[in-house]
Amino acid sequence: MYSVGVSDHMMVAHSLPRESFGPAQNMHGATYVVEVSFQRRELDEDNVVVDIGRATEELSATLDKLRYSNLDEHPDVAGQLTTTEFLARHIADRLAATDVVKDLAAMEVTLRETPNAWASYRVDFEASR
Amino acid sequence: MYSVGVSDHMMVAHSLPRESFGPAQNMHGATYVVEVSFQRRELDEDNVVVDIGRATEELSATLDKLRYSNLDEHPDVAGQLTTTEFLARHIADRLAATDVVKDLAAMEVTLRETPNAWASYRVDFEASR
Amino acid sequence: MYSVGVSDHMMVAHSLPRESFGPAQNMHGATYVVEVSFQRRELDEDNVVVDIGRATEELSATLDKLRYSNLDEHPDVAGQLTTTEFLARHIADRLAATDVVKDLAAMEVTLRETPNAWASYRVDFEASR
Amino acid sequence: MYSVGVSDHMMVAHSLPRESFGPAQNMHGATYVVEVSFQRRELDEDNVVVDIGRATEELSATLDKLRYSNLDEHPDVAGQLTTTEFLARHIADRLAATDVVKDLAAMEVTLRETPNAWASYRVDFEASR
Amino acid sequence: MYSVGVSDHMMVAHSLPRESFGPAQNMHGATYVVEVSFQRRELDEDNVVVDIGRATEELSATLDKLRYSNLDEHPDVAGQLTTTEFLARHIADRLAATDVVKDLAAMEVTLRETPNAWASYRVDFEASR
Amino acid sequence: MYSVGVSDHMMVAHSLPRESFGPAQNMHGATYVVEVSFQRRELDEDNVVVDIGRATEELSATLDKLRYSNLDEHPDVAGQLTTTEFLARHIADRLAATDVVKDLAAMEVTLRETPNAWASYRVDFEASR
Repeated sequence: MYSVGVSDHMMVAHSLPRESFGPAQNMHGATYVVEVSFQRRELDEDNVVVDIGRATEELSATLDKLRYSNLDEHPDVAGQLTTTEFLARHIADRLAATDVVKDLAAMEVTLRETPNAWASYRVDFEASR
Repeated sequence: MYSVGVSDHMMVAHSLPRESFGPAQNMHGATYVVEVSFQRRELDEDNVVVDIGRATEELSATLDKLRYSNLDEHPDVAGQLTTTEFLARHIADRLAATDVVKDLAAMEVTLRETPNAWASYRVDFEASR
Repeated sequence: MYSVGVSDHMMVAHSLPRESFGPAQNMHGATYVVEVSFQRRELDEDNVVVDIGRATEELSATLDKLRYSNLDEHPDVAGQLTTTEFLARHIADRLAATDVVKDLAAMEVTLRETPNAWASYRVDFEASR
Repeated sequence: MYSVGVSDHMMVAHSLPRESFGPAQNMHGATYVVEVSFQRRELDEDNVVVDIGRATEELSATLDKLRYSNLDEHPDVAGQLTTTEFLARHIADRLAATDVVKDLAAMEVTLRETPNAWASYRVDFEASR
Repeated sequence: MYSVGVSDHMMVAHSLPRESFGPAQNMHGATYVVEVSFQRRELDEDNVVVDIGRATEELSATLDKLRYSNLDEHPDVAGQLTTTEFLARHIADRLAATDVVKDLAAMEVTLRETPNAWASYRVDFEASR
Repeated sequence: MYSVGVSDHMMVAHSLPRESFGPAQNMHGATYVVEVSFQRRELDEDNVVVDIGRATEELSATLDKLRYSNLDEHPDVAGQLTTTEFLARHIADRLAATDVVKDLAAMEVTLRETPNAWASYRVDFEASR
């Protein structure tokens, strides 16, 4: 199994308005470093998993919709508890709707929010075919 | 599959008294950066894999028993070859005995001991149910 | 010259409401990794620059006042352009008001806001004595 | 499942002479940080996955054949599109031909080429037995 | 003293054709992570050292001239021993010729070439005024 | 001013037997990542600050005397409070006794002991000439 990974980042504000989140119920923010790993069983005729330029552009375009926003008021996610896990899934779903995932076996999106905490969402395309 | 990871670290002394370990047979020490990844198929009603505050506390409590100690004389591991692999398993077993692993699909504990070396132990809770 | 450094982090929301900041005029947020370096010409009788436990506590207490807040509405900085440079100075000024800087030659506070951008403020205590 | 990882690096020149690679069609180069993860279901009698000294030496010996070379003229890979994915597979195949993989369940080779891009090749020895 | 830093990277080929460089006399390559620190005594009216967008663009434009090239044949540096130190100075000189250094006290350019080696060039604008 | 940096690491045990060190009074240990920066006003005829191969060897040879040891019983430092600051100075003094520092303006030794703590010792050769 081959993988290729690319990373980017975004800076957003949000709050997590449920008692279990303690002080994170307040409006605060995060720099999310977003890493996406694309997996495939065989390389294509260019010896790559995906065109890394295209993958980088699709990731950047996906993050562009969220960058420098307050997620609490963002039409795509308003009303949701925008935990790091949720955001990993949200970004994965957006990427999975593009043709960059064609022929992939799996994709994993990881968001690093502090030096000590991160979350991932992994989608297995083979299992769902 | 969703994952959440947290990290902490501990500083301990130990020796690895078997010829195959070369100079590491001497009393020496390490800063272990300990990363734990918790995995779950679906998010809970708070959109999280685990309560990250609870996970951080359980990891810290587990490491508290080992921090600033000489493992060669530590009652929990004395008489064992305390390799990085062994310690990853030891920490995983302690965490697996707490309720922080409830409803998890898997857990992986990684110990980074130098910039060039690390070890992990992964437990698959689904396979063992 | 000896230095000792400690780090911590905080997650805050803010906006930079001036045209030159482009999209950062919107409410957004950041994870700031905060590193503080304490410098001294000679070590004390314990062979240290500062008591690293005390230094870590003072940094944490300083950040506690800002963590999980919206800086635009925070009484300590409201009405200010809370750039990374400004925040580095703000944190340095707070630390400089504690006795952790006693006998120091200099102190430098660095805030890392993304993998590609950071800012620092350095205060030279010798020059100002 | 236990894993042990080691890392090393190499500096090479190459070109990727196909239109889809854009400016990377030119002769350029890379520092590849190479990480290898060795996986095994049970530890051996020394409580390790592999002898980490031996693993480090085999990785270094494998990279020695490529270090400080122009891959376009290197007998082992000349005429190939030496993408990061290809190189990960090439290094994995060389390591898999040594006895360091004896009793392993799997091995994964990752090459980090920039702070924002990496590629991996994973071989599952159990599936192929 | 305030500082602001930005980073970028480039991938180039070159050789160091002098006996003291050992195997690096061969054509090889490197990924250079380039960090630039801009220093200034007082912040401007936007509470910044430099417009970080402008600084990032000037650094990128400077690296664009070198990216994906063989330095041995590059008109700007051909015939020079393109050591990491030399390249740090070369990039600093290019940046110093733009207006991004206006009102700065100092600038430092650092090139990281492997996890274990880096070089910097620092220019003190105050000393030279 | 030009700088060149190299890094290495060592794993040692020690204790800090004074009440102010709290739990670190116990025998424990650390992985110290040791970074050395060599500084010089002008490059030599090879366009370098120091021969990086020689610098790496001298650092490694210096650390070889301490690696895999219990500092409490090490003849070179026994009876000393082996704080990170002290060890930075100790390593700097050893390097300063070799000819690798010839023609240097300054040298700085940094020891990273955890992800959140480090110490440095800087020697200014120009001031002392």
